[in-house]
Amino acid sequence: MKNIIIASTSTVHGSDYLEYLLPELKIHFRNCKTILFIPYARPSGISHEEYTTNAASAFAKINIAVKGIHEYDDAALAVKNAEGIFTGGGSTFVLVAQLYQNNIITALTEAVKNGTPYLGTSAGSVICGLSMQTTNDMPIVYPPSFKTLGLIPFNLNAHYLDPDLQSKHMGETRETRIKEFHAYNNIPVLGLREGSWLKVDGDKIILKGQLAARVFKQNQAAEEIETGTDISNLK
Amino acid sequence: MKNIIIASTSTVHGSDYLEYLLPELKIHFRNCKTILFIPYARPSGISHEEYTTNAASAFAKINIAVKGIHEYDDAALAVKNAEGIFTGGGSTFVLVAQLYQNNIITALTEAVKNGTPYLGTSAGSVICGLSMQTTNDMPIVYPPSFKTLGLIPFNLNAHYLDPDLQSKHMGETRETRIKEFHAYNNIPVLGLREGSWLKVDGDKIILKGQLAARVFKQNQAAEEIETGTDISNLK
Repeated sequence: MKNIIIASTSTVHGSDYLEYLLPELKIHFRNCKTILFIPYARPSGISHEEYTTNAASAFAKINIAVKGIHEYDDAALAVKNAEGIFTGGGSTFVLVAQLYQNNIITALTEAVKNGTPYLGTSAGSVICGLSMQTTNDMPIVYPPSFKTLGLIPFNLNAHYLDPDLQSKHMGETRETRIKEFHAYNNIPVLGLREGSWLKVDGDKIILKGQLAARVFKQNQAAEEIETGTDISNLK
Repeated sequence: MKNIIIASTSTVHGSDYLEYLLPELKIHFRNCKTILFIPYARPSGISHEEYTTNAASAFAKINIAVKGIHEYDDAALAVKNAEGIFTGGGSTFVLVAQLYQNNIITALTEAVKNGTPYLGTSAGSVICGLSMQTTNDMPIVYPPSFKTLGLIPFNLNAHYLDPDLQSKHMGETRETRIKEFHAYNNIPVLGLREGSWLKVDGDKIILKGQLAARVFKQNQAAEEIETGTDISNLK
């Protein structure tokens, strides 16, 4: 039975890394002494070691040890044996390329479907969707496919940002980009604002945190959904 | 001898489509009765026909006719025979996928290298660089490669946006994303603000418009360059 937290961001403004989520994570990973960290997304290009140290510092506050997947010879086996798994944010393109290169797409999908508690933040959340095609990231590396884990039956836009009505900038808004996605694809997209997360229990998916989220479907007007809403039927 | 205008945006705030560029385009396309329009990037998913009509309305103001590439049976031949070429903005991913699918990457590169006057705006400018890897667009379709025309020896970030120092949003700034690109690639990147353009005459590349641009090189601090600067040596 799936047991997943899918968070828009690791960090909310003015607060430490993962701080706002720690009470939730203490419950989520209550049966874990050590969790496996997947640092592949490397925000700002930091090393796997440095990124794992950052994650370990946050989890130390709730007495959980963290080990980086790069410390294992067999990445797929590390995933299979993990008590819990956390995939951090950074570049979705780099993350997905590395998941394919290290051949752990299947192992990760199966482990989480079989009940290994999983936490994703930002890029680590985007990969829970059907494809990474609604990421905000730059295509800095070329992954062999945009297909991702499909742990939820829709796509995510993390760090969802409302249009700035005062802006004189002519670049596309986030909503415009998601509408362009729907000119070519019929997968629903959930715009998850910073501080929001999804809690997946089996097939049940609930929006958590303080904020509403925005649902985009092909050929339909976008819709706001309140926190606490059951979105298990979004597909 | 190359003769190219590479513009950050088609439209500046408060002005009509291409309006700010028309005096320049009148000179640039002075020997053209008709130009070939490449509407593949389809902003907001509009049709090739509708997008071509929009481009034609703007060029009518300087007495130049516009024909869409989709109106020809042989796209490569249309490119080869064109008096002038304009590639409009929209999704860089859709544009690049279509350039490959219609097999016109080589024809387009050769025509422009041989002197056919070319205008790019936004996505139509990004493809002039070595790769599309510094686009801001969502990966809404999967192109067979990120490699682009290489008409200039660096990459572009169109609609370049300075960090908003007041923002509480935790998503990456444009500068952070470009730095992440440089964790994996050594191609210089020019951040071209809206209202700026590059004028390419043979091997000479000059920054035009009112604004400075921002140059990013691997392992170096970013640098501002003033309008009028010759950046032919950026490589």
